[in-house]
Amino acid sequence: MADKKANIGVIGMAVMGKNLALNIESRGYTVAIYNRSASKTEQVMKDHSDKHLVPAYNVKDFVDSIEQPRTILMMVKAGKPTDAVINEILPLLSKGDTLIDGGNTNFHDTIARNEELAKSGINFIGMGVSGGELGALQGPSLMPGGQKEAYDRVAPILEKIAAKAEDGKPCVAYIGSNGAGHYVKMVHNGIEYGDEELIDEVFNILRNAAGYSVDDLAKIFSDWNKGELNSYLIEITADILTRKDDLGDDKNKPIVDMILDRGANKGTGKWSSEDALDEGAPQSVITESVYARFVSMLKDERVAASKVLHGPAKKPKFGSDDIVEDMRQALYFGKIMSYAQGFEQMRMASDNHKWGLKYGELAQIWREGCIIRAQFLDEITKAFEKNPSLDNLLMDPFFGDIANKYQDSARRVVAFATEYGIPVPSLAAALSYFDSYRAEVLPANLLQAQRDYFGAHTYERTDRPGNFHYPWYVEQ
Amino acid sequence: MADKKANIGVIGMAVMGKNLALNIESRGYTVAIYNRSASKTEQVMKDHSDKHLVPAYNVKDFVDSIEQPRTILMMVKAGKPTDAVINEILPLLSKGDTLIDGGNTNFHDTIARNEELAKSGINFIGMGVSGGELGALQGPSLMPGGQKEAYDRVAPILEKIAAKAEDGKPCVAYIGSNGAGHYVKMVHNGIEYGDEELIDEVFNILRNAAGYSVDDLAKIFSDWNKGELNSYLIEITADILTRKDDLGDDKNKPIVDMILDRGANKGTGKWSSEDALDEGAPQSVITESVYARFVSMLKDERVAASKVLHGPAKKPKFGSDDIVEDMRQALYFGKIMSYAQGFEQMRMASDNHKWGLKYGELAQIWREGCIIRAQFLDEITKAFEKNPSLDNLLMDPFFGDIANKYQDSARRVVAFATEYGIPVPSLAAALSYFDSYRAEVLPANLLQAQRDYFGAHTYERTDRPGNFHYPWYVEQ
Repeated sequence: MADKKANIGVIGMAVMGKNLALNIESRGYTVAIYNRSASKTEQVMKDHSDKHLVPAYNVKDFVDSIEQPRTILMMVKAGKPTDAVINEILPLLSKGDTLIDGGNTNFHDTIARNEELAKSGINFIGMGVSGGELGALQGPSLMPGGQKEAYDRVAPILEKIAAKAEDGKPCVAYIGSNGAGHYVKMVHNGIEYGDEELIDEVFNILRNAAGYSVDDLAKIFSDWNKGELNSYLIEITADILTRKDDLGDDKNKPIVDMILDRGANKGTGKWSSEDALDEGAPQSVITESVYARFVSMLKDERVAASKVLHGPAKKPKFGSDDIVEDMRQALYFGKIMSYAQGFEQMRMASDNHKWGLKYGELAQIWREGCIIRAQFLDEITKAFEKNPSLDNLLMDPFFGDIANKYQDSARRVVAFATEYGIPVPSLAAALSYFDSYRAEVLPANLLQAQRDYFGAHTYERTDRPGNFHYPWYVEQ
Repeated sequence: MADKKANIGVIGMAVMGKNLALNIESRGYTVAIYNRSASKTEQVMKDHSDKHLVPAYNVKDFVDSIEQPRTILMMVKAGKPTDAVINEILPLLSKGDTLIDGGNTNFHDTIARNEELAKSGINFIGMGVSGGELGALQGPSLMPGGQKEAYDRVAPILEKIAAKAEDGKPCVAYIGSNGAGHYVKMVHNGIEYGDEELIDEVFNILRNAAGYSVDDLAKIFSDWNKGELNSYLIEITADILTRKDDLGDDKNKPIVDMILDRGANKGTGKWSSEDALDEGAPQSVITESVYARFVSMLKDERVAASKVLHGPAKKPKFGSDDIVEDMRQALYFGKIMSYAQGFEQMRMASDNHKWGLKYGELAQIWREGCIIRAQFLDEITKAFEKNPSLDNLLMDPFFGDIANKYQDSARRVVAFATEYGIPVPSLAAALSYFDSYRAEVLPANLLQAQRDYFGAHTYERTDRPGNFHYPWYVEQ
């Protein structure tokens, strides 16, 4: 054991934990490290013998090696493994110590753990970490939630290890109490699902209905990345489309054509949709992107169905000359709707959980280090700077104007795909959301009549307050 | 206390419990009744003094008044009130007694209670009850799940009180173990949401884009009810549209025009979508119908948005001469997709929970007594009779043929609404589902490339088994 105590400890030496430990160490800190199986810790020490790392091979030594009040970052699997680590380490901690869970934890669990640990005087920070392995090492986007005083104490470390935006600001901020950090990370992941699906739908139309080649599309996405769609996901899509197969017989084939179309998921996109349903938030673009992955997984069923269910007999022509520009505008339009829904969902959750989320700041900390980083996020920050209590991004003039302007392209694209037989679940959901949100009157009046008819659920009226029941079963 | 013991007891004398008790009594049974506050029980006895009802004013007397092994039907509020009743009554029960929960309980709770009570040798049946107050009295659709031997003992009563289909069969059957009954009721409610939203979307287009009056629409829905759309919901929609305002100044106004367009919900539709997300089932039509209610609730936001977000500059003409027939076909097409999704979801859940659901039988017990009763359900029963392990309704020739045939109408309707600026979230979701499900190849290949690029999530290939990672970060 070194004489000098470590400034912070990291539990879990899988790649994310290891890289975060190395990132912290590189900023001038001494880092205690621990892993359930000793071999991983030994390997890290072997590979990085010159670093200020303090290895421990049991929990007690690990805890003892950290200066008080302790800060311990857990990078272990979400769920039971996280509980196991907490239960093992809790008896060794002192009042005022801070545990940080940097795993992909469901925010409901984080709320419960924060409350439970607070009984023992232990601070608990649930922290969303975005940016993958490379981000962890070089600079992730960090979304910590929990006790504010605990955050303030660890803020200097987090600010140093976080990604830096163009203006030099670190991509980390205090998100809110208990589960707010993991909550925001969850919505971030949902938004990421939506972004990916929107790109994939546009790609599919251009490739399969408009006949563009993969090479053409690489160029198109690369061009788009120079404009208002500029973002990490558009950039890597352009790059992906230039890549050739590395394994097959024909090394000139685009790799994308060799990849099986079964879209996997690890659950956080699904969580964000489940939460939207709990909040009463109409989060249709993201949810359709989750369902799109589900349908894609039914590959065998789809192959069988493709033999008996056929497409439209007559394929339409696209309704304008510049299909590529229309697709670009439709994609941007869809993105605006998806973010408008995601931010409205966060507003509802913030109200329910009393988190006081600062929406502009969230967009700011997503500008670097994470997968949805995009030029676009600056505009979201500006919108909330102008009006911190903005109900919906669409009510901001910048986004409202683009939506108004780009809707014609979006309508042409959705109508074309619909008539052509190409699925556009998220783009269509985006348009229906726009048309619903701007509708002074929706047919929910008929719905309320139906519900009152069969279930006596009562209805509200347009001309007076109150709840009413119509005498449906009295003959007129 | 009467000498003769009651055949069954009912706890909870709110309208559903009271009506079920009277329904059971009317079939020749003696029914013990109990309510937490005595006044409700007293009122029932006063109103029905000639019936074979045995009132009890404490739980012990209630339990003692029922013949053994006891059958007790709880009709109390879901959640904590249900737990309270169970905890109060459990010490008084004997091994082999059966508790039936007829409330709107989440199936996860039913699974947990079934397991917990089994430890004390008590059978627990979670039973979905559909049909509202009138159904409870005259004949509901019943969906009981739990111990099979317990079901067999109560089956004679349930078969007598259930609604009868045209062929005389009772609308009840053993659904499966533990939470299967409440599960199926939940999906039933989700399907109901979808049916309602599809009707409302078609109504909205015909009214607001095609310019039909409410009187015209009453006639149109009445005509539709004579054909393959024949169903309770189409029937009441036609009736609703004939009804005039009973409260306002102008008694000639259609009541539907006086109803505020805020669509409420009581949660079970939402549960069914949350479950779809858990099962990996692409249940987009129902989920969009849930979200449509959520958007409709944002009335103030919508009114504000309607002032700054505008519709398409140019309104298109409808692409065929017979808009009404196109709408009818689109509605039927949407309904097929919604049921295909709902039944696929139940298949996945049945596999996960080992319920062995009999899909054809489910459609059969929904033929009377419940809100989604429809001619259409007979075809579902037939489809599963022909092929009990049918993956998806669309793979049945009857439904596949209609989908193939009606898709052109559905495409015209969705394209028209899209270009006109009328929201069609569920209809558009239905079409995207059809086009996804029949797609041999979906753009999830690009998705998998993106996921492998930023997260090293690996991808599958079209030409060989296994999981692969592409060297994205190696310069070519």
